[in-house]
Amino acid sequence: MAGTPVTVIGMGLMGRALAAAFVAAGHPTTIWNRTPGKAQALVEAGASEAPTVDAAIAAAPLVVICVRDYDAVRELLAPAEAALSGRVLVNLTSGASDEARAMATWAAGLGAEYLDGAIMMTPPGIGAPDTAILYGGSPSLYETHEKTLSVLGGGTTLVSSDVGLPSLYDVALLGIMWSTFNGFMHAAALMDSEKIAATDFVPMATDWLKGVASFLTAYAPQIDAGSYAAEDATLETQVPPVRHLIHESRIRGIDATLAEYTEKLITEAVGRGHALDSYARIIDHFRAPSA
Amino acid sequence: MAGTPVTVIGMGLMGRALAAAFVAAGHPTTIWNRTPGKAQALVEAGASEAPTVDAAIAAAPLVVICVRDYDAVRELLAPAEAALSGRVLVNLTSGASDEARAMATWAAGLGAEYLDGAIMMTPPGIGAPDTAILYGGSPSLYETHEKTLSVLGGGTTLVSSDVGLPSLYDVALLGIMWSTFNGFMHAAALMDSEKIAATDFVPMATDWLKGVASFLTAYAPQIDAGSYAAEDATLETQVPPVRHLIHESRIRGIDATLAEYTEKLITEAVGRGHALDSYARIIDHFRAPSA
Ligand SMILES: NC(=O)c1ccc[n+]([C@@H]2O[C@H](COP(=O)([O-])OP(=O)(O)OC[C@H]3O[C@@H](n4cnc5c(N)ncnc54)[C@H](OP(=O)(O)O)[C@@H]3O)[C@@H](O)[C@H]2O)c1
Ligand SMILES: NC(=O)c1ccc[n+]([C@@H]2O[C@H](COP(=O)([O-])OP(=O)(O)OC[C@H]3O[C@@H](n4cnc5c(N)ncnc54)[C@H](OP(=O)(O)O)[C@@H]3O)[C@@H](O)[C@H]2O)c1
Repeated sequence: MAGTPVTVIGMGLMGRALAAAFVAAGHPTTIWNRTPGKAQALVEAGASEAPTVDAAIAAAPLVVICVRDYDAVRELLAPAEAALSGRVLVNLTSGASDEARAMATWAAGLGAEYLDGAIMMTPPGIGAPDTAILYGGSPSLYETHEKTLSVLGGGTTLVSSDVGLPSLYDVALLGIMWSTFNGFMHAAALMDSEKIAATDFVPMATDWLKGVASFLTAYAPQIDAGSYAAEDATLETQVPPVRHLIHESRIRGIDATLAEYTEKLITEAVGRGHALDSYARIIDHFRAPSA
Repeated sequence: MAGTPVTVIGMGLMGRALAAAFVAAGHPTTIWNRTPGKAQALVEAGASEAPTVDAAIAAAPLVVICVRDYDAVRELLAPAEAALSGRVLVNLTSGASDEARAMATWAAGLGAEYLDGAIMMTPPGIGAPDTAILYGGSPSLYETHEKTLSVLGGGTTLVSSDVGLPSLYDVALLGIMWSTFNGFMHAAALMDSEKIAATDFVPMATDWLKGVASFLTAYAPQIDAGSYAAEDATLETQVPPVRHLIHESRIRGIDATLAEYTEKLITEAVGRGHALDSYARIIDHFRAPSA
């Protein structure tokens, strides 16, 4: 019944959700937070609050940390470096890929093993079967702890042996999210200008996103092959509608920046001779010059 | 077996698909195109090519037109104004809402009834059960012809009695599409910089879009109510990750414009005191000043 002992450092919104999932799954769970006493409900549910970071790390072979940022991780672990030797540090703090790589090097220097992870969900989703947590690090280390880590989310996956990549996937996916959000807000404002409620519009918009997703699925092999022949929706045919979008926005006083950016991407590609290519050709604009 | 006679004007890619769907559904179908002889396959399948626009309009009570733009519609119908009296003109040409409203007024002056439509699909999808075609115009006129028009797409809907609105829905939905496409291209370029193939990344991205869609569904009532309290994902917590996205892009030489725009929207809202609101608060930025 009792699983592997685990320690969770950081009792913010996310850290508390992580610790609660471990407690619920029957793992003996030790917790620590810079400001003590912030997780009384967890202690009542069976978690032990350690008096020091050292004691927290000593309490379990697997130490999960989730605090504000990588600087906070360094700051709070600095006085406990010796205790980390022989431990597995699982860092679920959000950051950048270069920070994650630097932290893995630092942990290795202390004799700790290191996995970096990115949580693609808000705290209420922790422990749910479809919650994705993306890991980077040694595949054998990941396999050893996969079952324990899956307690935090059914969609737990090793995306790379490179500890820097979960952070990259994280921001790449968030970027898709924000772009879609912004496109929707723009659309909702156009609708609002004609007294159409967002709740009336959103079913059509989310249904439409399914079609958008199937276009992305069709574009991915074109991107990989560097071959963008369009059967139907060519870049050229998208010039008039993007101009209509700019027009509809401007006459209503609605920020048209997103549509202007799209127009620029399309007309640049058309200008380079790609009028009959699909939208996948736009990858050229984003690809790193050196890649 | 034979349905209502219909006429389709414009034998471009889309016009041919529309006429083919009518022929396949057993409607006696008359076609016309500025450049004749472009739809030989349709004639072989049973459509009649009219010698003049007048003759095409005279051949059926329901006249569907789908050409390059509204100017082309005006230009080609100008010599046939008298023939339009008593006809139902269904304009599936893409345009702007003000153009559609002007055309309805013009058609009414000729004694024609008018429906404006926006086809949310490429030609190969015409006739499919989930193909959406959005109409604006008189509800009773729409109802009279709904069955015939549904031949072109199972997702045929009247969105408004205002003939201008299909064009607005059209560009609003396309705007969401382009924003999502651009976000994906940005993400795919980040992945590409680490040698991760777009085909490996796209299943995660499209899966992620389902979660994004459920956030939009949650945000819509907040937008309508003007009340944006976030339970978990506050605007404030999105500042560090959007900066990470900018950082990851810049160090790789990848255009960070989209992320910079998102950062601006978020920090503006936070600066106005909305740090604890959800992303739905961003609607303020887009809403027309007068709305
Ligand atoms: N919340 C989400 O939806 C979500 C989703 C995915 C990923 N994340 C990531 O998860 C991490 C934690 O987020 P959260 O939502 O739990 O944030 P939070 O509720 O603001 O909690 C922040 C935590 O960091 C600790 N902390 C901050 N500065 C510190 C320092 N210098 N030394 C030691 N501890 C410090 C805080 O300790 P005190 O209590 O002592 O202040 C607290 O435990 C972040 O990297 C976040 O990006 C969050
Ligand atoms: N293709 C799509 O994926 C798609 C999707 C949704 C909506 N639409 C919309 O459907 C409409 C037609 O698109 P399409 O794909 O069929 O375009 P297309 O293949 O380029 O065909 C254009 C049609 O317009 C006619 N035309 C152009 N200028 C004209 C003029 N001045 N006078 C008379 N006829 C003229 C052309 O006649 P000629 O043969 O004589 O040149 C041809 O029939 C456009 O508004 C488009 O935005 C297309």
